[in-house]
Amino acid sequence: MRLREKIEDLAKIGATPDGGVTRLALTKEEWEAKKWVINEIKSVGLHLTIDKITNIFGRRDGSLIGSRPVLFGSHIDTVTNGGRFDGAYGVVAGLEVMRVLNESKVETVRPLELVCFTGEEGARYPTLFGSSVVAGLRTLHDAYCTEDHDGVSARQALLQLGLMPDALEEPLKNQAYAEAFVELHIEQGPILEREHVQIGVVRSIAGYDHIFVKIFGRSDHAGTTPMGDRKDPMLAAAMLVLEVNRLAKKSGPDGRGTVGRVKTRPGVVIIVPDMVEASIDIREVDEERLRMLRESVMGHLDASCKELRLSYEIDESTSIPVTGLSKRIQKAIVASVEDMSLSHMMMNSGAGHDAECMAKVTDTGMIFVPSKDGRSHSPMEFTDWKDLENGANILLNTVLKLSA
Amino acid sequence: MRLREKIEDLAKIGATPDGGVTRLALTKEEWEAKKWVINEIKSVGLHLTIDKITNIFGRRDGSLIGSRPVLFGSHIDTVTNGGRFDGAYGVVAGLEVMRVLNESKVETVRPLELVCFTGEEGARYPTLFGSSVVAGLRTLHDAYCTEDHDGVSARQALLQLGLMPDALEEPLKNQAYAEAFVELHIEQGPILEREHVQIGVVRSIAGYDHIFVKIFGRSDHAGTTPMGDRKDPMLAAAMLVLEVNRLAKKSGPDGRGTVGRVKTRPGVVIIVPDMVEASIDIREVDEERLRMLRESVMGHLDASCKELRLSYEIDESTSIPVTGLSKRIQKAIVASVEDMSLSHMMMNSGAGHDAECMAKVTDTGMIFVPSKDGRSHSPMEFTDWKDLENGANILLNTVLKLSA
Repeated sequence: MRLREKIEDLAKIGATPDGGVTRLALTKEEWEAKKWVINEIKSVGLHLTIDKITNIFGRRDGSLIGSRPVLFGSHIDTVTNGGRFDGAYGVVAGLEVMRVLNESKVETVRPLELVCFTGEEGARYPTLFGSSVVAGLRTLHDAYCTEDHDGVSARQALLQLGLMPDALEEPLKNQAYAEAFVELHIEQGPILEREHVQIGVVRSIAGYDHIFVKIFGRSDHAGTTPMGDRKDPMLAAAMLVLEVNRLAKKSGPDGRGTVGRVKTRPGVVIIVPDMVEASIDIREVDEERLRMLRESVMGHLDASCKELRLSYEIDESTSIPVTGLSKRIQKAIVASVEDMSLSHMMMNSGAGHDAECMAKVTDTGMIFVPSKDGRSHSPMEFTDWKDLENGANILLNTVLKLSA
Repeated sequence: MRLREKIEDLAKIGATPDGGVTRLALTKEEWEAKKWVINEIKSVGLHLTIDKITNIFGRRDGSLIGSRPVLFGSHIDTVTNGGRFDGAYGVVAGLEVMRVLNESKVETVRPLELVCFTGEEGARYPTLFGSSVVAGLRTLHDAYCTEDHDGVSARQALLQLGLMPDALEEPLKNQAYAEAFVELHIEQGPILEREHVQIGVVRSIAGYDHIFVKIFGRSDHAGTTPMGDRKDPMLAAAMLVLEVNRLAKKSGPDGRGTVGRVKTRPGVVIIVPDMVEASIDIREVDEERLRMLRESVMGHLDASCKELRLSYEIDESTSIPVTGLSKRIQKAIVASVEDMSLSHMMMNSGAGHDAECMAKVTDTGMIFVPSKDGRSHSPMEFTDWKDLENGANILLNTVLKLSA
C-alpha cells in the first residue's frame, strides 16, 4: 500500500528510539520533513509554493481558470516523542489523493491544493502557528518576533535553517483565497474505535481555556505545625483537581477537565509547601457550557482559597472559542461515506487543529479515522492501515464533490 | 547579652543573603561552625574531644572522679537557607552554661559535657547522622560509606575537609557513657507562643512515617479523551492529599499529615499525566495511633487506586517509632522552671531531634522555647532574646540538678 509506505518513510525523519517522532516547529527535523513533502509535490507534478512562514502548498489546476481552490492537508510537525500519524497522515493522504487523480486522469473544475502547515502542535512556537498566519489571525511580523523557550525568534529559526525569508512567497491571508478547507486527521481519542465506526464527521472543534494558577500559602515544618495552624496550598490544589474533574463530567459528554501539571514548592517531604502551581485545561463544544465550566472552576478555586486562608494568582490564561465547522462540507463528507458504504458518526473534536484557523476564513470540514486505544502524542499512536485507506478515500471523494 | 552576641556571631558562618544560614553536614560551612565551637570550648577551658564522625565534645570535670557526665547540646548544621536558632541555640546556650558555672566557680559532682552533633538535619547525609553513631544505632563503617546525592561518601567528605579520620577519637557508643542527655531547642511550632508559655517540657518525640509513592495511570490527550475513559493518577493523588489531611486531624492534637511533594509526569497542560509522585509525612506521639494513621492512609490509597483503575508503588519508606523521654528529667526541668517562677507546659515534639537517638542509650529530656509565628527551617525563624535567655537558665538549673 503506497499510503503506508509513504507514512513509514516520512516517519524516519526525526524518529526516536522507541518508535516515536520528534519534529518541533522550524527545527531541522521539521524542515527535513517539509523537504520530503516538497519532493513529493514535485514528483506528483503539483505547482509548489512556500510562504514566508514555510507553509508548503502544492496546487493541481482545475478546468475553471482563476477559480478558488479546494484546499486540504494538515501539518507534519509533532510534539516531543509524538506519533507517526498525527498531522503527517493528512498531508500524506492529500498527496495520495493528487496521485490517484493524476493516475485516473481526472480533471476537476476547481483547482485542488494540498497544504502542509508549519508548527501546529505548539511544542516550540504557539499552537496553530502556520495556519494562523494564513488565516490572518496572526501577522507575519508577530509570527517572526515570537520566541521559543531559548529566546530564538521564528525569523532567526528560519535563518538558522538556511532559508531567506525575503525570498519566500507572501503568506496567503486573503479570506477569498480558498473555496473550502478539508482536514483529514486521526481522532486521537477512543470514540470511533469503541463505537466500531470507520469515519468521524466533525461538527465542532472544542473551545478551551488553559489557565495556569499559582496558589500561595505558608511554608511550615510538617512535624511541628498543628493541622489547624497551617496554610497549605496543596489542599486547595487537590480540591481543584477533583472539582475540575467533577465539573467537566457534569458538563456533558463533550466536557473535558484536566489538571496536567502540579508542582509543589519547595517540594520537600517535611515541609508544608508555600506555593503550588497547577494547570487547568477545560474544554467544551458549546460556548455557553464552556463559559459555565470556566466560571464554576474559578469560583470554586476562589472559594476554597478563601476558606483555607490562601491566596492565588492567574499566571497565564488562554481562551479559545468553540469552532463550528461548515454544514455544507459535513454533508459532502457524509455523502462520500454513503457512496463508499462505510460507517460514520457525527462527532466533535476535543483537540485543536489547523481547521480552527481556516474555519475563520472559509468553509471548513474535518474527517476523523479511529485511533487505536485512543492513544496519541505518543509512540503508541496507531491507526489500522485499512482505516487510514478509508479516510484517504473519503478525502478524495469529498474534495471531488467540492471541486466539481 | 553574651548569648545573643554568640548566636549572631555563629550565624555569620554560612549566612545567606536573606538572613538565613546554610550549613549542610560535613561541608566547609559546617566545619567552620564546628571550629567556632572548638574555639569556644577552648576559651571556656573545657576538655575537647572530636570523634571520628566529627561530633564535638567539651567536658568540664566534676568532683566525683570517674563518674558519668551529664551531657547536653544539640547540632550546628542547618537545612538549605535555614534559621539561625535551630540546633545552634542548644550548643551556644550549653557553652554559656559552662561559662556561667566557671564564672560562679560552681563545682558539680558529676562532670558536665557539651556536645555538638554532626548533621542532624538530614539535608545531605541521613537525619540524626552524628547522634545515631554515638548511640550505636549506626556503625561508623556504615556512616562512612553513606553517600550524598553527588555520590560523595561521608569519609570522602571528611578527607575533603582536610581531616584525617584515623587521627580522630573513637565514637562514644557505650550505653554507659552518659548519665543523662538534655537538649535545649526552639519549639519550631506555634504552640508555646499561642499559649503564652515560656518553657515547653517535652514528654515524647513524635514517631513518623515518610512514604514516597508513585501512582501510575495512562497518559492521554486532555482534549480527545472522554472523562470516563481516563486513568488519571492525579485524581488519586488529590484524594490522597485530602485524606492525609483529614486523617491526621482526626487522629488527635498531635496527629500530623502532610503531602509536601507532588509532581506530575510529563507535567504538560494538555496531557493527562501517566505518573504522579507524592510524598507522605505522617506523625503521632502514640505508637498505636501512628500505626492506625499509616494503615488508614495506605488503605485509602489502595482503595482509590483500585476504584480509578490505577496502580501504585511505594518508592521509599522510612518508619521512625515514637520516642518517650525520661520522666526523671522532665521532673528536673519542671522543678527548674518552678525555681525560676517561669511558666511551662508539658508538650510533644513534632520534629525529630538528636534526643531521639540519645534516648535509646540514656535518660534524655528536652526543653523548648517559643518560636515566633512557629516559623523554622527558614530565614524567618526567630525567638525573642528573653525567651532564649530563659531557656538557657532552665538548662543551667536542670543540669545542675542532674549533676548534683
